[in-house]
Amino acid sequence: MSPTNLKKLLNSLTLPEKVGQLVQLSGEFFDTTQNIVTGPVQKLGLNPEMVPLVGSVLNVVGAEKTRKIQQAYLENSSHKIPLLFMADIVYGLKTVYPIPLGMGATWDPNLIRTAYQNTASEAYASGAHVSFAPMVDIVRDARWGRSLESTGEDPVLNASMAAAMVEGFQHNLGKDSGIAACVKHFAAYGAAESGREYNSVDMSEMKLFQDYLPPYKAAVDAGTEMVMTSFNTINGVPVTASSYLLHNVLREKWGFEGIIISDYAAVNELIAHGYSSNQSEAAKDAFVAGVDIDMQSSAYANNLDSIITDGQVDESKLNAAVLKVLQLKNKLGLFEDPYRGADKQVESNAILSSEKRELAREVSNKAMVLLKNEKNILPLDTSKKIALIGPYSDEQELLGLWAVHADRNETVTIADAFREVVPSDRLLVRKGTNITDDVEMLRGLGLSDDVISKNILTKKQAKMEFDSAIEIANKSDVVIFAAGEHTFESGEGGSKTNITLPENQKKLIKAIRKLGKKIILVTINGRPLVLTDIIDDVDAVIVAWFPGTEGGHAIADTILGKTNPSGRLSMTFPYSVGQLPIYYSRLTTGRPETKSTHSSRFTSRYIDSTNNPLFPFGFGLSYSQFNYTDMKLSGDVLHEGEKLTVSVVVSNQSDRDGIETVQMYIQDLFAKVVQPEKRLKSFKKVLVPARSEVTVSFDIDVEMLKYFDNQLHYNFDPGDFKVYVGHDSLHLAEARFVLRA
Amino acid sequence: MSPTNLKKLLNSLTLPEKVGQLVQLSGEFFDTTQNIVTGPVQKLGLNPEMVPLVGSVLNVVGAEKTRKIQQAYLENSSHKIPLLFMADIVYGLKTVYPIPLGMGATWDPNLIRTAYQNTASEAYASGAHVSFAPMVDIVRDARWGRSLESTGEDPVLNASMAAAMVEGFQHNLGKDSGIAACVKHFAAYGAAESGREYNSVDMSEMKLFQDYLPPYKAAVDAGTEMVMTSFNTINGVPVTASSYLLHNVLREKWGFEGIIISDYAAVNELIAHGYSSNQSEAAKDAFVAGVDIDMQSSAYANNLDSIITDGQVDESKLNAAVLKVLQLKNKLGLFEDPYRGADKQVESNAILSSEKRELAREVSNKAMVLLKNEKNILPLDTSKKIALIGPYSDEQELLGLWAVHADRNETVTIADAFREVVPSDRLLVRKGTNITDDVEMLRGLGLSDDVISKNILTKKQAKMEFDSAIEIANKSDVVIFAAGEHTFESGEGGSKTNITLPENQKKLIKAIRKLGKKIILVTINGRPLVLTDIIDDVDAVIVAWFPGTEGGHAIADTILGKTNPSGRLSMTFPYSVGQLPIYYSRLTTGRPETKSTHSSRFTSRYIDSTNNPLFPFGFGLSYSQFNYTDMKLSGDVLHEGEKLTVSVVVSNQSDRDGIETVQMYIQDLFAKVVQPEKRLKSFKKVLVPARSEVTVSFDIDVEMLKYFDNQLHYNFDPGDFKVYVGHDSLHLAEARFVLRA
Repeated sequence: MSPTNLKKLLNSLTLPEKVGQLVQLSGEFFDTTQNIVTGPVQKLGLNPEMVPLVGSVLNVVGAEKTRKIQQAYLENSSHKIPLLFMADIVYGLKTVYPIPLGMGATWDPNLIRTAYQNTASEAYASGAHVSFAPMVDIVRDARWGRSLESTGEDPVLNASMAAAMVEGFQHNLGKDSGIAACVKHFAAYGAAESGREYNSVDMSEMKLFQDYLPPYKAAVDAGTEMVMTSFNTINGVPVTASSYLLHNVLREKWGFEGIIISDYAAVNELIAHGYSSNQSEAAKDAFVAGVDIDMQSSAYANNLDSIITDGQVDESKLNAAVLKVLQLKNKLGLFEDPYRGADKQVESNAILSSEKRELAREVSNKAMVLLKNEKNILPLDTSKKIALIGPYSDEQELLGLWAVHADRNETVTIADAFREVVPSDRLLVRKGTNITDDVEMLRGLGLSDDVISKNILTKKQAKMEFDSAIEIANKSDVVIFAAGEHTFESGEGGSKTNITLPENQKKLIKAIRKLGKKIILVTINGRPLVLTDIIDDVDAVIVAWFPGTEGGHAIADTILGKTNPSGRLSMTFPYSVGQLPIYYSRLTTGRPETKSTHSSRFTSRYIDSTNNPLFPFGFGLSYSQFNYTDMKLSGDVLHEGEKLTVSVVVSNQSDRDGIETVQMYIQDLFAKVVQPEKRLKSFKKVLVPARSEVTVSFDIDVEMLKYFDNQLHYNFDPGDFKVYVGHDSLHLAEARFVLRA
Repeated sequence: MSPTNLKKLLNSLTLPEKVGQLVQLSGEFFDTTQNIVTGPVQKLGLNPEMVPLVGSVLNVVGAEKTRKIQQAYLENSSHKIPLLFMADIVYGLKTVYPIPLGMGATWDPNLIRTAYQNTASEAYASGAHVSFAPMVDIVRDARWGRSLESTGEDPVLNASMAAAMVEGFQHNLGKDSGIAACVKHFAAYGAAESGREYNSVDMSEMKLFQDYLPPYKAAVDAGTEMVMTSFNTINGVPVTASSYLLHNVLREKWGFEGIIISDYAAVNELIAHGYSSNQSEAAKDAFVAGVDIDMQSSAYANNLDSIITDGQVDESKLNAAVLKVLQLKNKLGLFEDPYRGADKQVESNAILSSEKRELAREVSNKAMVLLKNEKNILPLDTSKKIALIGPYSDEQELLGLWAVHADRNETVTIADAFREVVPSDRLLVRKGTNITDDVEMLRGLGLSDDVISKNILTKKQAKMEFDSAIEIANKSDVVIFAAGEHTFESGEGGSKTNITLPENQKKLIKAIRKLGKKIILVTINGRPLVLTDIIDDVDAVIVAWFPGTEGGHAIADTILGKTNPSGRLSMTFPYSVGQLPIYYSRLTTGRPETKSTHSSRFTSRYIDSTNNPLFPFGFGLSYSQFNYTDMKLSGDVLHEGEKLTVSVVVSNQSDRDGIETVQMYIQDLFAKVVQPEKRLKSFKKVLVPARSEVTVSFDIDVEMLKYFDNQLHYNFDPGDFKVYVGHDSLHLAEARFVLRA
């Protein structure tokens, strides 16, 4: 449709019809087999006349379902404006990738871009138009359940992933593939105080701009069509009502012209927040701030109309918002074909195709982080007799909480994968214990006793499982223990105060250890775990995250050496929960632990714990053996407009080709506002063939040295800098240079 | 000296002499028996010519010592400007009170004012002129070691204590008693990230003004002569170099005209902070920001002279700072009598006098917080046979880390106090175990093996102690277990990631519990402890803090019912370290745990823990039984310029008189910036006689309803409010009113 016709269409709409375009409801409102008025409409407190006017649908996918809803809707529509279908497609639709925290661990934006392009092709064929992703919130507190959905703690790494994900989703958008991205959650949702879900965020604007906003900005710069507001307050103002963040920053500073949508029910929740005193005020506050679409609340539907007619807000502002919605529908080609893409046949070919599974397997492999490999026990000698034990040994729940549209039955379990390659006489499999024994926690999550009983073994069963596990361990040469968090223990609403492995699992591991068996620990997890109390009981640790549909294959590939692990932590693994929040880019203090003239008591430290984590940001082992030598800096003075080059020689001293992620950090030694001990500025993944070496270099220019000061000026300070290059945030070679203005 | 003569004196000084007035050095620089040039002067990198010119001395007390130093100094002084003696006299000099966290628990500013007046009288006679106290930092993270020195987490309570302490110190200042107060640490030092000592602070200015600055402001308003800057950065700027905080806020907004001093070595540490690139810059940065005196660094001494002669800073600014120092010396009467107050005879009468000990005992008693009293086991039936067990059972280390000038030998131990009143055939005493077994921690604190061996039992000794404790427990009717943290585990540089009782102590408690004995747990602690893993093993809990010189008496008084406990927590006792930071005045979220329409998963909570602490702010039991009824509000509309009165009837349903601390909180239900669930606004301690009742009322006016918005405007929002009155921050009756502008 031409811009002119789009405007004509806009002008032909009644006020309620316009408002309808700004309302999004979940699928149940479109279920013609139910009485929606006494059901969802009543529950939401919605004016029922608005239902046929709403402009978009939440979390319905599938060619057949979306076609059916679209058809019924259009039949009753006077203007025939098609519905937009939006859904949570965060790390795969049917072919599920590792959780984003695992994708972050690949440090491979190009690979991730392709993964999201594949996801978009499944979604396109399933009738989805917009995905509520990427989720790019910086997270530095592993208590927070949604650590799962983020690529990690670092603004540079998250920004590069954010851009790749948007580009992947929106590749060929409006042509014959591609869906619109909706970056979330703007902003700083991951900085929830004390790691508690939905908790308030308080930080200086400087920190917000320096550390938390860059990934959203990268998504906007990559062309994301939509932005979702976050549930939290920042400095007392719910983001969903923040004119400052939505208008001044997002629209004006960053030039974002797409659609801003609230998170689920968030407009209405401005009341619970203690910000808006009633629903009409909530609608007005969110709309004036800049929220275009109200997701799953009745605030806009019931109030926006009268807010306009009362003259509280000018209709031109409404028109602008509606036009944006119509423009996106137009851009997606929905006026030409309201069912675009949605095709049952194409869908069944597209989803879970062997190519897609192959890529998922590759991503899962590259996400694996090898944290420990005592005496090179891995890759595993395949002549060994293996006992595969643990609650995740033969479990299809490898997808994590937010793979909401996926089918668990398609998941390859770890045991499945091993059975494909290990003869049955050398493989014994036993669960050994539950994922969790914490019935109280499961009940607290509102799960029915029926669901709980499926997750919990009876005492008798538990004893039998335990004994059998010990028995097969005894019979084997090596134990692979597949441990982890329950799916319900991370993701949205999954904040925890204790983030070790569940007690029952540790008990079994320690019992096996007492048999004198070698143990390879594989963890299935949605957040950084505290592994301190188990690390000495095992010989190897592979962090597999929730590894997705092909997770079982990838774990077997890694353990058996079909692939060589190359994943690196994108979020710090703490030594204890008492260190949280913890992250590598901590600010310098006046009494640094290692460089103070004071006695050790009077330095910035804990007296009962190291300041360092158990495993630092950027860490991860390989089956190859890498060494860093010959760090060189092309000069010791950097002038504006020029650049320096830092290089390092990475040698592979093993007989195995391997991929090394070389990381470059910079520290501004003296600045108008105190800077972190180091900040990641760049990274390169390089293949280093066996017994050979590669020179890796990075350019340093003035742009890289800029920071936000406390007046929010983005600039550099002439003076002394350090550049660090190496394997991870704690193991680095360094050089100094001076910046002359 | 007249103002005119003071200015004449100032004008007669050479530049180095002026600079000298702005330098403070520790006592070792005045030790004429040592070669100071090769010792402390070299260590500090000080120009040795500056030593005879410095204006003040750090941490020397005692009439004889101060007189001697003053005399030697003045003999070599051309202008005969006396030295100022300043010292850490934070919670008593020789007669030591409970740590400030305990004083906060008294909720009794009048009592605390008297305590500081008594301390000032000891200090006055000992030759001290200025105390580096009160320490009023708001602290909401029990990991921080200096929780010990603060009165707690709440701005209203801390502000009232801050004012009382300043008034107590400065009573009759410049006459024949009274010493100058130096409020610290300006500002927000207690908000160190992750509870790690000296760590950076990042927060919105709104939060800074609303929650963290009020206690400093109260001290300034109460007339504190001095302010000390804090070690931390706030939003990237070290406070010691923050013109914004020192000049704009402290001088201009608050009108502070006294002396600003840095904390120990903090000016020099601007370099380690990564703020100033060399010492000259550090001196300039601190001085320009507003620091008058440089404590224990060579930055001012070595550089201020040339900074002035270079014209980087105008000499008038130097003159103004020096004049302030001279004015304080004059105000204290030092020009008339450089030895004012310091008198060995008066000193020996003043310190540890029976009146002073009596008051210390009263404060210790009123600081005791009774957290649990199952089946009213307390007060203890004196016919019972008592086993007094635990590392603190007969230990004089009851003073806490920062009673730096006190004599441990003067401390009354718990056993001493019991022996005074319990016949020896009904009292058995045994240590039973060490305070800690953590040799690694003690070694990490830089303690010598000699000191450590004094603190740690050998394995054989430990077994003997343990067995003996079990033996006497078996012989007794009831066990009093005196547990706690080691003195080295809290205070400056005492941050910890695990804040439960030490494992060895818990082990002994649990072993005694297995005998079926009733246990009364007394905790000696410098911070809120996590008692969750021990609370069910004991029948009663008395939090005694580090209770001071008369601590043993007060503990016996409380247990035996000579006094009726009335202390209330001024800082939240968490359920686990995974909840930190935690405090009662948390902000409302959009998905409150108890009032959300979402399923329990999607509310603001932890899935493995309550959001609530084990014991909330304001909590504490009594031997009396109080009930709250008949809450009344004088109206439901408040107009500006008028007031409402809320009242409640507190009845004592026991046969024992008791003191109840009635607390009044207010919630602003809807505001321009989201407000906390509640904020303490007022409190009253009332004596409620046995079997009678008292009506307690509070006025509410508009001033009480003001808050800082995110533009730092201090104002109120018309609309709905709730007022809560009750026993503690979680147990409250409520009423609603409307504020009409």
